[in-house]
Amino acid sequence: MRTQVVIIGSGPSGLLLGQLLTNAGIDNVILDRVGKDYILGRVRAGVLEEGMVGMLDRAGAGGRMHREGLPHEGFSLAFDGRDHRIDLFGLTGKRVMVYGQTELTHDLMDRREASGGVSVYETANVTPHDFDGDKPYVTHEKDGVTHRIDCDFIAGCDGYHGVSRKSVPQSALQTFERVYPFGWLGILADVPPVNHELIYANHPRGFALCSMRSQTRSRYYIQCALDEKIENWPDDRFYDELRRRLPAEHAGNMIVGPSFEKSIAPLRSFVAEPMRFGALFLVGDAAHIVPPTGAKGLNLAASDVHYLFDGLRAYYGEKSSAGIDAYSDRALKRVWRAVRFSWSMTTLMHRFPDTGEFGQKIQEAELDYLVGSQAASTALAENYVGLPY
Amino acid sequence: MRTQVVIIGSGPSGLLLGQLLTNAGIDNVILDRVGKDYILGRVRAGVLEEGMVGMLDRAGAGGRMHREGLPHEGFSLAFDGRDHRIDLFGLTGKRVMVYGQTELTHDLMDRREASGGVSVYETANVTPHDFDGDKPYVTHEKDGVTHRIDCDFIAGCDGYHGVSRKSVPQSALQTFERVYPFGWLGILADVPPVNHELIYANHPRGFALCSMRSQTRSRYYIQCALDEKIENWPDDRFYDELRRRLPAEHAGNMIVGPSFEKSIAPLRSFVAEPMRFGALFLVGDAAHIVPPTGAKGLNLAASDVHYLFDGLRAYYGEKSSAGIDAYSDRALKRVWRAVRFSWSMTTLMHRFPDTGEFGQKIQEAELDYLVGSQAASTALAENYVGLPY
Repeated sequence: MRTQVVIIGSGPSGLLLGQLLTNAGIDNVILDRVGKDYILGRVRAGVLEEGMVGMLDRAGAGGRMHREGLPHEGFSLAFDGRDHRIDLFGLTGKRVMVYGQTELTHDLMDRREASGGVSVYETANVTPHDFDGDKPYVTHEKDGVTHRIDCDFIAGCDGYHGVSRKSVPQSALQTFERVYPFGWLGILADVPPVNHELIYANHPRGFALCSMRSQTRSRYYIQCALDEKIENWPDDRFYDELRRRLPAEHAGNMIVGPSFEKSIAPLRSFVAEPMRFGALFLVGDAAHIVPPTGAKGLNLAASDVHYLFDGLRAYYGEKSSAGIDAYSDRALKRVWRAVRFSWSMTTLMHRFPDTGEFGQKIQEAELDYLVGSQAASTALAENYVGLPY
Repeated sequence: MRTQVVIIGSGPSGLLLGQLLTNAGIDNVILDRVGKDYILGRVRAGVLEEGMVGMLDRAGAGGRMHREGLPHEGFSLAFDGRDHRIDLFGLTGKRVMVYGQTELTHDLMDRREASGGVSVYETANVTPHDFDGDKPYVTHEKDGVTHRIDCDFIAGCDGYHGVSRKSVPQSALQTFERVYPFGWLGILADVPPVNHELIYANHPRGFALCSMRSQTRSRYYIQCALDEKIENWPDDRFYDELRRRLPAEHAGNMIVGPSFEKSIAPLRSFVAEPMRFGALFLVGDAAHIVPPTGAKGLNLAASDVHYLFDGLRAYYGEKSSAGIDAYSDRALKRVWRAVRFSWSMTTLMHRFPDTGEFGQKIQEAELDYLVGSQAASTALAENYVGLPY
């Protein structure tokens, strides 16, 4: 079998790249070691920048998002018992779209099916080969039979634990990492969100985030120790702790209800450089991880897709390799900006075990400055809505 | 003896407060345990915000500063081998004035002498008494004789190591501190500055700062380990290391010459709260220390003087104690903003032993964003030129 681009991974970045390629008449195959239902069962991000919204539209997969998604024009920063709105739209002229990653993945899968794109799910031992030569190919084992797909390019959209980055010789990679000394304990519950916009709360007891997936489904988080056990956090204790970290006006308004998902996630920053090795391109989480504080992970994967699609289209359309040659540098420039912002929001909003009272006061002074200065508010807002590609 | 305000410490903040009080007809005495020459021998800050310039004018001590000082409309941020100018004036409409603390202190001493203000130098065991009651007084020993000065108020302008803060019961003070894991090795030399504006350099080998006192006197610093020994840094080695940390355009232009001062200073952030105890007010370094990276120490002392003078003038003029009652809160609000900015500039520009390559990349991403975003450049500039009182 032969195709132009093999895409490893059928998460949002692989699906988005595949759809853009298909729409541009570039042949592609998506391989994933797990099944559709497993992928759709992942609970992930839900705040989309306008750049990503535009790419979904371009992929022809934005219809339901525009109908059901919630455009947000601001969010709240809560600290020192008070609540301050960051007017994203007023400061930048841009909105963000609240729309769950699960829904978006569903829409992209439907779109791929409708346009006849080839996806192979639940296939084992997906392995990229010879991507440093001029005859790259990918092998995989479906139902006990090994298949080989010859191709021009391989897009590694298979996340941090995927095979793509691991196929690159260690010596060719430089990695950068920061592991944070805490995690997020999160729940999903079918209750109306405590506020119509997101609330990011800095509190001496730790960070809290009130997010949502829809007007009837809330996503709440509290900072926790890395060694916390979920079984120690029945819903009542979770809601009590969440309320303690919010200004009274919100704590008093919270409608509680049973959670149907509860998990603890560690926070990490990670970047691997470069993002291209011959015919193999790393995309999204395969190359970089950000802590979720700035809502940047999914959006950053979309910006990688933007640069890679741009390069591949020029390669096939105008016979120019300038775009794919520039991919790693262009993508990494934006990656580091988002990594910086996510690190900075994480550092600003969380309680760190080693910074003490001085650290707490510095955070409150920074928040106070942020909400009081037009320039600082604008800098925060322009990062949150998404720096330009 | 009796006066209205006893000022402990004849550095710039004590002298500035004394002069403003004298000009307003409020009687005051300045006491200092050391002599004029010792005070004038201290090599300290040299970048004045417009607020401080205005206060010197108001004190009637700004004449020579306007003739000999260097108004600066920008500074350079150097990183990754490149140089980027922050256009302070373009971004904020404000300038800073480069004028050495030694000169400014000299001018204030001259002005005090001309206006007949009483200063007692080289007097031992200066001690504030009964400032929590309604009959405060200060004792000191001059030439073996103990003197007592009864007063309404005591202004502690005697720095971090002075007696004022130490006279407050420990239990009444909350202190916040961060000690940085490096120092600054600095020299003074009578050579023209390498650049007409200051250069703040971030480099994998460590921070460097090219500052100046005049067009013929340079003040250069490099980040160093806390256990460095000055004797290991002959001038040649210092200049070599400094040049390695600067973009080539500057390194190639540097005129070198023998240093006449060389010292290593540790970097620290420190705040004591509150800043008032009954009749005793802490001012400047007596209450807070910032690392010198943001050039805020002297300016922050001036903002304390602004709030305290404002309160004292209202007390004596309008018989209102609202201003002195608000002193601590008003001063601390601004203190924390400057402490935050100084911490943030220090964190951004220095090599930290524990943050590794990730830390260096984050710094470069932040610098890259800072110089590329109008909002972020403005936020930096508005802090540098001085947030409003």
